[in-house]
Amino acid sequence: MSSAVLDFTIPNLGEAKIPSPILMSHSSGDGMADYVLDSTRILFNVATKAGSDGHSVPVDDGTLELAGPRERIYFNPAHVHAAITTCGGICPGLNNVIRAVVRCFWYRYGVRRISGIPYGYQGLLEESSFPIIPLDPDIVDDIQEKGGTILGSSRGGGDQISEIVDSLERMNVNILVAVGGDGTLRGAWDIGEEIKKRGLKISVIGVPKTIDNDLSFIQSSFGFDTAVAQAVPVVRGAHIEARNSINGIGLVKVMGRESGFIAANTSLAQSDVNFCLIPENPFDLEGENGFLVHLKKRILDRGHAVILLAEGAGQNLLPPTAERDASGNVKFQDIGIFLKDRIQAYFKKERIEVNIKYIDPSYIIRSAPADSFDSIYCARLGAHAVHAAMAGKTQALISQWNNKYVHIPIKVAVSRRNHIDLEGTLWRDVLENTRQPYSMAN
Amino acid sequence: MSSAVLDFTIPNLGEAKIPSPILMSHSSGDGMADYVLDSTRILFNVATKAGSDGHSVPVDDGTLELAGPRERIYFNPAHVHAAITTCGGICPGLNNVIRAVVRCFWYRYGVRRISGIPYGYQGLLEESSFPIIPLDPDIVDDIQEKGGTILGSSRGGGDQISEIVDSLERMNVNILVAVGGDGTLRGAWDIGEEIKKRGLKISVIGVPKTIDNDLSFIQSSFGFDTAVAQAVPVVRGAHIEARNSINGIGLVKVMGRESGFIAANTSLAQSDVNFCLIPENPFDLEGENGFLVHLKKRILDRGHAVILLAEGAGQNLLPPTAERDASGNVKFQDIGIFLKDRIQAYFKKERIEVNIKYIDPSYIIRSAPADSFDSIYCARLGAHAVHAAMAGKTQALISQWNNKYVHIPIKVAVSRRNHIDLEGTLWRDVLENTRQPYSMAN
Amino acid sequence: MSSAVLDFTIPNLGEAKIPSPILMSHSSGDGMADYVLDSTRILFNVATKAGSDGHSVPVDDGTLELAGPRERIYFNPAHVHAAITTCGGICPGLNNVIRAVVRCFWYRYGVRRISGIPYGYQGLLEESSFPIIPLDPDIVDDIQEKGGTILGSSRGGGDQISEIVDSLERMNVNILVAVGGDGTLRGAWDIGEEIKKRGLKISVIGVPKTIDNDLSFIQSSFGFDTAVAQAVPVVRGAHIEARNSINGIGLVKVMGRESGFIAANTSLAQSDVNFCLIPENPFDLEGENGFLVHLKKRILDRGHAVILLAEGAGQNLLPPTAERDASGNVKFQDIGIFLKDRIQAYFKKERIEVNIKYIDPSYIIRSAPADSFDSIYCARLGAHAVHAAMAGKTQALISQWNNKYVHIPIKVAVSRRNHIDLEGTLWRDVLENTRQPYSMAN
Amino acid sequence: MSSAVLDFTIPNLGEAKIPSPILMSHSSGDGMADYVLDSTRILFNVATKAGSDGHSVPVDDGTLELAGPRERIYFNPAHVHAAITTCGGICPGLNNVIRAVVRCFWYRYGVRRISGIPYGYQGLLEESSFPIIPLDPDIVDDIQEKGGTILGSSRGGGDQISEIVDSLERMNVNILVAVGGDGTLRGAWDIGEEIKKRGLKISVIGVPKTIDNDLSFIQSSFGFDTAVAQAVPVVRGAHIEARNSINGIGLVKVMGRESGFIAANTSLAQSDVNFCLIPENPFDLEGENGFLVHLKKRILDRGHAVILLAEGAGQNLLPPTAERDASGNVKFQDIGIFLKDRIQAYFKKERIEVNIKYIDPSYIIRSAPADSFDSIYCARLGAHAVHAAMAGKTQALISQWNNKYVHIPIKVAVSRRNHIDLEGTLWRDVLENTRQPYSMAN
Repeated sequence: MSSAVLDFTIPNLGEAKIPSPILMSHSSGDGMADYVLDSTRILFNVATKAGSDGHSVPVDDGTLELAGPRERIYFNPAHVHAAITTCGGICPGLNNVIRAVVRCFWYRYGVRRISGIPYGYQGLLEESSFPIIPLDPDIVDDIQEKGGTILGSSRGGGDQISEIVDSLERMNVNILVAVGGDGTLRGAWDIGEEIKKRGLKISVIGVPKTIDNDLSFIQSSFGFDTAVAQAVPVVRGAHIEARNSINGIGLVKVMGRESGFIAANTSLAQSDVNFCLIPENPFDLEGENGFLVHLKKRILDRGHAVILLAEGAGQNLLPPTAERDASGNVKFQDIGIFLKDRIQAYFKKERIEVNIKYIDPSYIIRSAPADSFDSIYCARLGAHAVHAAMAGKTQALISQWNNKYVHIPIKVAVSRRNHIDLEGTLWRDVLENTRQPYSMAN
Repeated sequence: MSSAVLDFTIPNLGEAKIPSPILMSHSSGDGMADYVLDSTRILFNVATKAGSDGHSVPVDDGTLELAGPRERIYFNPAHVHAAITTCGGICPGLNNVIRAVVRCFWYRYGVRRISGIPYGYQGLLEESSFPIIPLDPDIVDDIQEKGGTILGSSRGGGDQISEIVDSLERMNVNILVAVGGDGTLRGAWDIGEEIKKRGLKISVIGVPKTIDNDLSFIQSSFGFDTAVAQAVPVVRGAHIEARNSINGIGLVKVMGRESGFIAANTSLAQSDVNFCLIPENPFDLEGENGFLVHLKKRILDRGHAVILLAEGAGQNLLPPTAERDASGNVKFQDIGIFLKDRIQAYFKKERIEVNIKYIDPSYIIRSAPADSFDSIYCARLGAHAVHAAMAGKTQALISQWNNKYVHIPIKVAVSRRNHIDLEGTLWRDVLENTRQPYSMAN
Repeated sequence: MSSAVLDFTIPNLGEAKIPSPILMSHSSGDGMADYVLDSTRILFNVATKAGSDGHSVPVDDGTLELAGPRERIYFNPAHVHAAITTCGGICPGLNNVIRAVVRCFWYRYGVRRISGIPYGYQGLLEESSFPIIPLDPDIVDDIQEKGGTILGSSRGGGDQISEIVDSLERMNVNILVAVGGDGTLRGAWDIGEEIKKRGLKISVIGVPKTIDNDLSFIQSSFGFDTAVAQAVPVVRGAHIEARNSINGIGLVKVMGRESGFIAANTSLAQSDVNFCLIPENPFDLEGENGFLVHLKKRILDRGHAVILLAEGAGQNLLPPTAERDASGNVKFQDIGIFLKDRIQAYFKKERIEVNIKYIDPSYIIRSAPADSFDSIYCARLGAHAVHAAMAGKTQALISQWNNKYVHIPIKVAVSRRNHIDLEGTLWRDVLENTRQPYSMAN
Repeated sequence: MSSAVLDFTIPNLGEAKIPSPILMSHSSGDGMADYVLDSTRILFNVATKAGSDGHSVPVDDGTLELAGPRERIYFNPAHVHAAITTCGGICPGLNNVIRAVVRCFWYRYGVRRISGIPYGYQGLLEESSFPIIPLDPDIVDDIQEKGGTILGSSRGGGDQISEIVDSLERMNVNILVAVGGDGTLRGAWDIGEEIKKRGLKISVIGVPKTIDNDLSFIQSSFGFDTAVAQAVPVVRGAHIEARNSINGIGLVKVMGRESGFIAANTSLAQSDVNFCLIPENPFDLEGENGFLVHLKKRILDRGHAVILLAEGAGQNLLPPTAERDASGNVKFQDIGIFLKDRIQAYFKKERIEVNIKYIDPSYIIRSAPADSFDSIYCARLGAHAVHAAMAGKTQALISQWNNKYVHIPIKVAVSRRNHIDLEGTLWRDVLENTRQPYSMAN
């Protein structure tokens, strides 16, 4: 994945001198967990070649700082005003993260001023009419059983950095936990830069949110497991629809603007998928090796087909649009409807009766509550964000890497997208399962 | 519901003289169930007025023949070739019905020739290339755990009566169980008429299938309970989406071409619905009492709204289309997309930011496996269909009425649709729950 | 079911003179639901014999008063202090009923004093230390998504009638809605009698709760559908366990102290059950026609078996216990463990290896949230309880009969239990599905 | 976890000379996945200390061989007779593994002789009366939708090594895939040793199965995610039961004989747990710091408590038993029933009314079908087992480590158990969530 050693150094606000109120140990063997040291690090890259002696010759791609509670913290809990905000589209697990953040601040550090910022960064803009939401363990008690975010969410606002920092100053916020995707994290970095410029002591910690799993430097993003779990019965339904009508075709579109992880993993979990179409693997419709010919072959052979489509797939086939959403993301045409129409036209021309059913379950998937996997994950992400902030770390995000919770500098994290490696094992195993051609481009 | 006494007499093929192979009793008190008598009947109408003496003064709207195993049957099981076919769109419970029919023929009557007709009536047409599927208990062992129908389904073919009866004759089929909706049942009646005209001894029994619950003379159709159960989490998701964005509007379209039962019941089950729009209750968009004004009021008051829409609602607002599907049903424009566009345009004009999310879960709902309620129901419907056929009943369908399984002459059953009574208790309770105006027409 | 005409007359507190605040209509055809008249009644018995002319000759078993909002009510909403309590074991749907009661009082009648009585009748005892819970629509907003009851529940207290009525007087409660089973309803009747004796104007309305479905005069009790739905995957798991080990036996115990409805319906919904054992159908273990011989036959034939057991089944086999629970119900020995031990001993003696897995999912089942069927049902039961109380009805319970919501005098309702009729169609269809002998008694 | 460098060298049957029938690439950049090289290895240990220059100073704990398809294979697919067997208790995902193994052999390598060995190693014993099950893609098509294993499973047989190898010889099996736990894998190693001794060319590949997640050298075992997901609603139900009765106590026992991973993870996923009791953390019942005092404190403070118990917890409290199961595992007394009785006795003595509900959902959990996470995992484990076997690897198991699929020598894999590290981050986070004392031993 990496070609040069990246700088994984975590910025911090100053020396952490205050003893942590959390009772832990310094030494192993006493049956009590130890404080985490800043010097404990995790290798970024685990792949290596066996040397002649069979021992490891690791490629040095740098190391990551281990997350967790420190023995000394930077902020006096009695002086902390913590804020948390959730940005962008909703995603399973947001409420779990909010809950974990609030509970860790409250129970572990004794912080009593915790504010929920409504509707993402917009809630920090001057003209915002939405009231700040005071948070405590009672308010967040059961929220994880619901999908979405009790704070509400929105795109946009993330470019009005100066105004946001004004608000933080005015509210005496000294910790900001921002939960969001690529755009949100860029905003968080810029907010951190503005804070530094003004000489303020405000920690900005990101919790990476992307249902598409398209952020690098995080082994899997929260909500992703739930998204796949939600997509599976939809694909099963599409398969039922396809098998139960004459030359039935089930076409399902799932999320994945730039990366096809949901589609790929769903294809592995529910092996009824015959064609998995993802942004990373452009394809042609027409021509000898085009998708339509392969689809026709499948229909003639087996009488039904299931197509699973990431929303960003096949963009090469669509005329570009000039529209952008509030976060600045390019708005795509709906490839699902486009493909459905093209398939129908093609088989009409070929004089083959087909019955095509198009399903777009996106909002159903993203509004689901977190499953147990994501519940555990979010509980731990949220707590680690609090530990990082209290220790005076800033402009960092909490990530899981090689199954360890680590800190990643936000700047590094947003420097590249996570894509499916067409030569990697995930895609290899998807092709093995779907038995589709490895390329459908002419 | 009724204004004149209907003729509920069930046609039959002749006298049932053969002793049933099913061991049952004639007398109560011996701990063993009794054979059902043709003369046991169920009142159609249970509503009445108390007389001056407090006793019942029933309105005589006729009585229905009780379904169940008879002591004497018409067909010699050793001579029976039974066929079953499933027509129209898929619906939860189809496989359960198939399974129950096969098991009852096989285990209870000892019938060994049972054929599955593929893809509905089309599978009986001369040019059909789909092979007949021999059925036995092993083949149907686990099929109820899957949605859809192992026989496949299609619309159409139901008007080629003569050809279908030719096929039945050629195949020596003497019992045909047809599972389907209004069109299928009309076809079944006509097949029965043609059989009578030719002097054949073929029993045609219908099992009514309508996920919309829009057939009269059946208290609730199979698959309907599952459909509502499937719609509930979708509406919950729409509510999450609506609450979590600024002036969020969740718009969900469910099945219901002519009757809004799924929408109405879902509104009772999941009380987040603010507007339940059904075909029976036309509404205006514009004007003082129009839907858009009421929606705006809700948005200004509460900041979010959930709209649940039956697909046949608001047809008065749409320009008619000339298209019909293969069953001859008028094709509607998609009211969901139409409404979404109109809402967006309206709020844009009003300069109010709204975030609207449109969800169409139809295929997800109808491809689900039957829930336990429908599993029980279908198991019993299927068995009763077999009992009716073996007793020589014909041109009848199996229905549940006042919680009893009964026979209904198909001709009566297709004589009117089941609609939500706007003055009845169901709609009254929906309005109570949604607190929407009882009329949004000007 | 009935042998003599029962008196279904509903007691009331006096003439209802106050116009209802609910806007409804008097006449059909205006598109608005009508007020319900006391004189509108529902036939109790729908079974009949065809006369020589084919018309109905109904057996007059009496008629039931239709439930619903009346045009004139007895209580001035401004003067109402309503109380609600939930008694006995928990059951899916309790929170739905509470919610519906609160919302109907609040939104439909404008009642603003609604009190939740904690832990059933115990919360009304003098020495109760549990605070009364004030209820409004905000408090009950989402409670239906959780199992159990926000009011808590307990057995007992129901015999301290005088003390309870003292409390109601002291609190100025004029409406008491009691949700509970047989014992609770007897208590409610007695409370009503005491109120009458004291000349008070307090309405006592019961909402019948029995997960076992063992109350007569209610076609199916709330929570029952959910219980069956929850039991189905447990039986499926038992079947998996049984099939996957050598001579595997899955033994599942479900609720049903006196009536085996959950076991019977689950056997219809999940046809893997080979032996359905219910209280109504005593069986022997030993002997030629005993259960163990039949089980051995099944094991030798097929190599696995699934047994579904109602907790009250086989009580004839157990030595009686003298213990009673707080509601006064006889405590049974655990037939599940008893049967498991006897099966193991028997096969050991027969030198046949068996692998038996015993599953008791009771608490998992009864703590589940209501499914959509029960959600709808509870929403409507709760609203009808409020309509009855506001109209001045008392000592009545809300029931569904022949698919209509009706009032039943509590005294009649508790006069007999609901049992599975061994000669009826439900048990007939269970035997057909399990293919077990209709009797396993010698 | 490790203190000395382990020998991770994988045994093999000889040089792999036959070109693989799988079309892959040798070079990156061509859009096609590459064959995996034996020399590509994964670091075992990723934790490190930052050197003075911030760079990694990895602790060399050895490296693991990457799994995946090789360019040259050892067996000629046309000569392969592959066998697969599943041993021990059932676990979610077994059918998924079987299916993946069969499909990979069949579709990727063209192997046509694949045999299912019934009931684990017992199916290979001389006296076994269970027929071998021929497997192909049709037979395994839908099996993953069901829990359990279509091959059946049993303990025992794993010590009759010589007899098993005799059977493999007689059947001309040259690949044996054994899916099972610690005992099964020890058996597989011994089978491999006997094969070596006899100079046979039979590859034995293990797929590690432990629902308890108690195998070392595998980051998480298949079925474990599903087990936690299944346990969560049970704990939610216990919480409902506890909250809804006076001083309610919900006591849930989950699997975990030697390691408490299911209990710990469930406590993180469902934060209603107040006491998580695991084998790794012995506790006292009595005494000042004993469990009962802490439970009493919780009950007096909050009126309810939820206890989640691994089945192996508190064994120090129980008198030992001499019994062992067929796999040779010590049979424990049921700590759940023991604890329930002790809690009741304690509160009776303390004269505090408590209502305790004990739930043991083990068979429900382990018979569930795999969730999407485990479905993906098993699909990939199974395929990798086939790739390993075809390449001539033997006495190895397929594991996931640092998110990569790797080969582990079985001998190393069974050399130690996986336990929760009481000083590690998992247990730290559990304590943070439950807020129970880190020790309840005096």
